[in-house]
Amino acid sequence: MAGPSLDVVGIGNAIVDVIAQADDAFLARQGLAKGSMRLIDAARAEALYAEMGPALEMSGGSAGNTMAGFASLGGAGAYIGKVGEDELGRVFAHDMRATGVGFDTAPLAAGPPTARSLILVTPDAQRTMNTFLGACVELGPEDIAPALIASAQTTYLEGYLFDPPRAKAAFQKAAELAHAAGRKVSLTLSDPFCVERYRAEFRALIEGHVDILFANEAEITALYETASFDEALRAVRGHCAIAALTRSEKGSVLVTGDEMHPIPPVRIDQLVDTTGAGDLYAAGVLFGLTHGRDLATSGRLGSLAAAEVIGHYGARPETSLKALARQAGLL
Amino acid sequence: MAGPSLDVVGIGNAIVDVIAQADDAFLARQGLAKGSMRLIDAARAEALYAEMGPALEMSGGSAGNTMAGFASLGGAGAYIGKVGEDELGRVFAHDMRATGVGFDTAPLAAGPPTARSLILVTPDAQRTMNTFLGACVELGPEDIAPALIASAQTTYLEGYLFDPPRAKAAFQKAAELAHAAGRKVSLTLSDPFCVERYRAEFRALIEGHVDILFANEAEITALYETASFDEALRAVRGHCAIAALTRSEKGSVLVTGDEMHPIPPVRIDQLVDTTGAGDLYAAGVLFGLTHGRDLATSGRLGSLAAAEVIGHYGARPETSLKALARQAGLL
Repeated sequence: MAGPSLDVVGIGNAIVDVIAQADDAFLARQGLAKGSMRLIDAARAEALYAEMGPALEMSGGSAGNTMAGFASLGGAGAYIGKVGEDELGRVFAHDMRATGVGFDTAPLAAGPPTARSLILVTPDAQRTMNTFLGACVELGPEDIAPALIASAQTTYLEGYLFDPPRAKAAFQKAAELAHAAGRKVSLTLSDPFCVERYRAEFRALIEGHVDILFANEAEITALYETASFDEALRAVRGHCAIAALTRSEKGSVLVTGDEMHPIPPVRIDQLVDTTGAGDLYAAGVLFGLTHGRDLATSGRLGSLAAAEVIGHYGARPETSLKALARQAGLL
Repeated sequence: MAGPSLDVVGIGNAIVDVIAQADDAFLARQGLAKGSMRLIDAARAEALYAEMGPALEMSGGSAGNTMAGFASLGGAGAYIGKVGEDELGRVFAHDMRATGVGFDTAPLAAGPPTARSLILVTPDAQRTMNTFLGACVELGPEDIAPALIASAQTTYLEGYLFDPPRAKAAFQKAAELAHAAGRKVSLTLSDPFCVERYRAEFRALIEGHVDILFANEAEITALYETASFDEALRAVRGHCAIAALTRSEKGSVLVTGDEMHPIPPVRIDQLVDTTGAGDLYAAGVLFGLTHGRDLATSGRLGSLAAAEVIGHYGARPETSLKALARQAGLL
């Protein structure tokens, strides 16, 4: 079998972010839980949009952001996700390809429009996401090209894919294909509410089917229903080869069966918008791991990539992460 | 006659900006003159977009940006401009209304899509704009509601309106209605190439039909075909009641027949993207003039508004200009 020609193929909900500032009172009036992601239908999206402030539009989607960051570090990646045949779909596809990430999933010719997430950023830089999945509900197993999965060292999957039922089948097909080809499978848990929705399935998946797991503190404690981060850390060890667990301003921890590497966060001047922090952390770690770096260096690449994206609005880097990593002596 | 219920009504090409980073080599390969605005057709827009890097989308348009800044300062404004009945048109309308600016121009039901400007920002923070006018070509005199013009202290017009022929007729109708109602007319020259295209018409208009003129150094010297800024300054005095002339990092000068006020620029930490600098300067000056401030204070409000917008990507403020102006002791 030929060696992998790609480093990572990411699979996720293909979403355009609509980013606006909001205050806590606005979240309260709209009944929104700060920091979370909730799914909304088209009517609710329209109603919320009408109430929101002026916005900027930028391609997003958790795995999409990760792949954009991965390419910015110099990695060879591809992305699978479903957009509509519309203006926002063209924006998403353009941005992915212009970042240097292969993207050939057929757009949805008829049906719901390209997904959008109405993201409210509060003055404390927290983001609250309201996602209308649109065309993402039509991503299915037929969109997973076996040759593409086999060509990548690692297949990276976002937990959010469990929300649209056909996407879950696509997710499972991709994971099976990757392992059948002798490749690695990586998963991010995406969101604590997403973990609540699919806890049993995620646990079953992680035991034996996930090589590299990404989760933040809220997600990993939700997964194992533990009171503390340390208990969750003990629970996850042994279930997957590598777990990379983020803790916001406390940095992150990378664990394997016999190693544990606490990684300090990279300090930034001004925290603006935390959207994409976890996605970009995953980009850095995946870049390190697929390029022969040790766990600690991979973790530091993750922190560096996350630090770039939280210093401005939008979940994709504005600066070359490769150049930043070189300046920091990590590449 | 009743007093004006609005401060300013702005009329312009309603455009969504598509903002990407580019280097000088990219501009050279594409044959683009740095810092300028050029008009492109749909095919050229598609070809250039395919070559551009990942982008963010944000509502723009010169007078649109000015009105957004004007509202951010606390002014009462409205906007007239033509979008298509499409996703980007809905984005433009949302952003304008969400900023607190009245916007009721009927969208174009059939015909070209909402205008977009492909804006390339180089590392020196200069912007080079490639505008596909789309639906803007259908703005016409029928879109100028006499009651709206009469309700505003000042009607603000962008020179770019001379590019679509029917918009020029709308422009002229608006100026005539404003003066007939005893209101003021303000014009921005928009771009030196725009001045080259319509020099004679702009000169005729300014002599007797414009009360408040905005121009930068390149535009005012192009208008009067002078070798120096000082000569152009002498030429403009007496032709309109107030001229507000910007000079990038040298600040600006406000002149009337008998007064001249040099205004220093507001220093910023990091220059990121100069898109909208002139538009926001106009917002500050117009706010001052329509709120009884003297020329020098109005100029300083202009500098403050411009400084906010050049510190980040996008041509509309990310921060409340009213709050910034209060901090600076200007309001």
